[in-house]
Amino acid sequence: MNNLTQVIAAVSTPPGKGGVAVIRMSGNGAFEIADRVFFPISGKVFSECKTRTQVYGYIIEDGERIDDVLATRFPMPHSYTGEDTVEISCHGGILVTRTVLEALLRAGAVPATAGEFTRRAFINGRLSLTEAEAISDLLEAKSREQIRLSGEGARTRLSERISAIRSALVDLMSSVYARIDYPDEDLGDFTDEELLARIYNIKESCESLISTYRTGRAISEGVRTVICGKPNAGKSTLYNLLSGEDVAIVTDIPGTTRDVLERSLPLGRVMLNIADTAGIRENENMDAVERIGIQKSRQMIAKSELLFAIFDTSRPFDDEDEMIVNAVMASDSPKIALLNKSDLPPCFGKERLSGFDYIFKISAIGDGEEIIKSLADAVNGLFTDEKIVIGQDAVISSARQHAALTRCVDYLSAAAESLALGFAQDAASSDIERALGAISELDGRAVSEEIVSDIFSKFCVGK
Amino acid sequence: MNNLTQVIAAVSTPPGKGGVAVIRMSGNGAFEIADRVFFPISGKVFSECKTRTQVYGYIIEDGERIDDVLATRFPMPHSYTGEDTVEISCHGGILVTRTVLEALLRAGAVPATAGEFTRRAFINGRLSLTEAEAISDLLEAKSREQIRLSGEGARTRLSERISAIRSALVDLMSSVYARIDYPDEDLGDFTDEELLARIYNIKESCESLISTYRTGRAISEGVRTVICGKPNAGKSTLYNLLSGEDVAIVTDIPGTTRDVLERSLPLGRVMLNIADTAGIRENENMDAVERIGIQKSRQMIAKSELLFAIFDTSRPFDDEDEMIVNAVMASDSPKIALLNKSDLPPCFGKERLSGFDYIFKISAIGDGEEIIKSLADAVNGLFTDEKIVIGQDAVISSARQHAALTRCVDYLSAAAESLALGFAQDAASSDIERALGAISELDGRAVSEEIVSDIFSKFCVGK
Repeated sequence: MNNLTQVIAAVSTPPGKGGVAVIRMSGNGAFEIADRVFFPISGKVFSECKTRTQVYGYIIEDGERIDDVLATRFPMPHSYTGEDTVEISCHGGILVTRTVLEALLRAGAVPATAGEFTRRAFINGRLSLTEAEAISDLLEAKSREQIRLSGEGARTRLSERISAIRSALVDLMSSVYARIDYPDEDLGDFTDEELLARIYNIKESCESLISTYRTGRAISEGVRTVICGKPNAGKSTLYNLLSGEDVAIVTDIPGTTRDVLERSLPLGRVMLNIADTAGIRENENMDAVERIGIQKSRQMIAKSELLFAIFDTSRPFDDEDEMIVNAVMASDSPKIALLNKSDLPPCFGKERLSGFDYIFKISAIGDGEEIIKSLADAVNGLFTDEKIVIGQDAVISSARQHAALTRCVDYLSAAAESLALGFAQDAASSDIERALGAISELDGRAVSEEIVSDIFSKFCVGK
Repeated sequence: MNNLTQVIAAVSTPPGKGGVAVIRMSGNGAFEIADRVFFPISGKVFSECKTRTQVYGYIIEDGERIDDVLATRFPMPHSYTGEDTVEISCHGGILVTRTVLEALLRAGAVPATAGEFTRRAFINGRLSLTEAEAISDLLEAKSREQIRLSGEGARTRLSERISAIRSALVDLMSSVYARIDYPDEDLGDFTDEELLARIYNIKESCESLISTYRTGRAISEGVRTVICGKPNAGKSTLYNLLSGEDVAIVTDIPGTTRDVLERSLPLGRVMLNIADTAGIRENENMDAVERIGIQKSRQMIAKSELLFAIFDTSRPFDDEDEMIVNAVMASDSPKIALLNKSDLPPCFGKERLSGFDYIFKISAIGDGEEIIKSLADAVNGLFTDEKIVIGQDAVISSARQHAALTRCVDYLSAAAESLALGFAQDAASSDIERALGAISELDGRAVSEEIVSDIFSKFCVGK
């Protein structure tokens, strides 16, 4: 990362050729640097042009026009970074964009590192760490629900909720310190019970946020999902239904799905990180590669959070099906059985499949949308809290956020216990202080450089 | 292409993930469509916000916030297309960008086709066809000189020059028609000689532009260049010098460069489209692949515009070197001999290499910059007119432009001839009209739909 006194510059649009590219420059002195290379066609000096207005002009270096561009200046603090910022919209050729950027660098800017603009926004108090995390997630979003979860509405709401918890903690702490510092003063009707009530109140706020993690994580990070079934039962068919495309090759040759396919696909509100396993089928004729595949399947089932097991009901329930049921039942995760080829007369039914949370009939030739709808409802019910409205409610979605809130709750519990047991309020006060520390980590007011670096390293250069 | 009454929209920045993406929307009704989905945070209506000003707000569809963005409106005619235009700068995630675009499409816009924004700019008289060609070249530019050639300065200058020729032709034609229509009127001292002088004047302007084509083409399209030499003479070393990277593998095993490498690399002002040939070496032990390689090399030499032949002077001049000299001399193109391994005592010198335009000593371990400088000077001299200042002078660079100007000159010559031979001015006037037609094709005022489509199909969607 560059020194905060330096003006940073980078191409903010995706790499490659396009019609337009945007180059962003931020820092104290950005306008002066722009004035050295950008010359409005009006003849005015750019730094004296109207703010937030797209000004047409030329990038000129050593008397040579490099490109005609639109440039906009955003004076601090009303910019993305909170610093003086210039955005230049130039022709989107690869070399012309690089040449304009190089002109800015030669005029005094330094190349921005990954996420440095957002990091400066964070440092300048323009956004909290949870908001920065959400923006990073938004850029990576692969489902509409992920967009909602990391969109402006959700990220603002979460920040507000965390701010409210912080304020309540700060208030609580000053009350406690007042009683410690001035034990003989009359501080009104401020009893131990009231202190306790306030602690419980804050704790409840934290717990309510913590309870959203299950939903947030299922949407954001996703659920480790395994599809299993004996060869030719219809695993690939289901996979295709879910992906809406021909990702796996549907074929009648047993064992074609030997290599594990992995792909993230949204189902309902949830992101499924699906692994399609090799057939769980053991016999003496198996080759070494197949054995490895099966061993890997068992490991994947053990680590999965959701299991789909597919059975071909047009053929009798056999030893292989039995093996799959046994393998699946070894896991504690939710299990969904899918009875495939339901268009043909069934050789067996649900009686063989006790222990599954859901049983659905499917068919490769049936109504794909209907089965997807049923599966989505089931999965939404299993992994999300349907009361939560993503995009409107505050939801946490990262392990970091969850851990910080959990620590906060633990400290508040300890504080409450000290008070309830009649210990000196000093003990409680230090736990409350630790609770505030946990919240400060959450919103980034007090957080280790390591965590901040980790978060911003996920950004691209130019953001 | 869409109907001109439709509002078109597309992502104008390169595809992929970035910090920022720009979506452009243009056409009569663009502001109304924006008002349906974009809501400024100020509470104002976007179409009533200040023009050319970046307005912060939300993209909202069905009551749901999709993204927080900056939007700018450019009312006609002061926009890129000359129509009402909206530019939306949203978060640069792939899905979030697509979702914002889809909201615009659902609100009434239609997806823009490749180059459609620039095509509308052309239709609306915001730029000429030669300017559109230059913008297309600018987006593809791979050398600084190509940027200069297609930059705002050069493209404006060329348009001005063509406009001047057109004006002179229009003036000339009205004079001629006046004399035809009113033969008895006193039209001042307007003699046949003066008419001829004006024709020659315009013809000279055209010829002066035509003479820039050699330079423009060498910079823009490039020069077909062949590097040849016997195995291990140092072809790959030269190739690496020119490319500044390890593109070809430098090795001591003869015949490693069997497949033809092709790459465009700038040298001086010129773009070299270099093919590194298989060794020109024939013997009875050669396999079929090698024979094909050699045959291909000979074909490439025949079609080349510039030849580099490399000789290893540390070994005696042998039959293979002789074969290379003979193969190269079969071409009429400029030839540059490179005496490699000049750091070792030479076994032969220039006496063997009569017929080459330039002879340079090189060495894999020597000063790369110096040899590149010498080569660049030679190539600049061979293919460009050093008096032309790219970026400041009007230069034509496409075969289409060259052909149109050549036609114009031919018609003007015919007109001059008619007049000189004392034919009726009717004959001259129709040739002058044809000359004007050629210029109208050049600037795009009268040009076939086929040519226009061909030019704009080279653009990306969003430009």
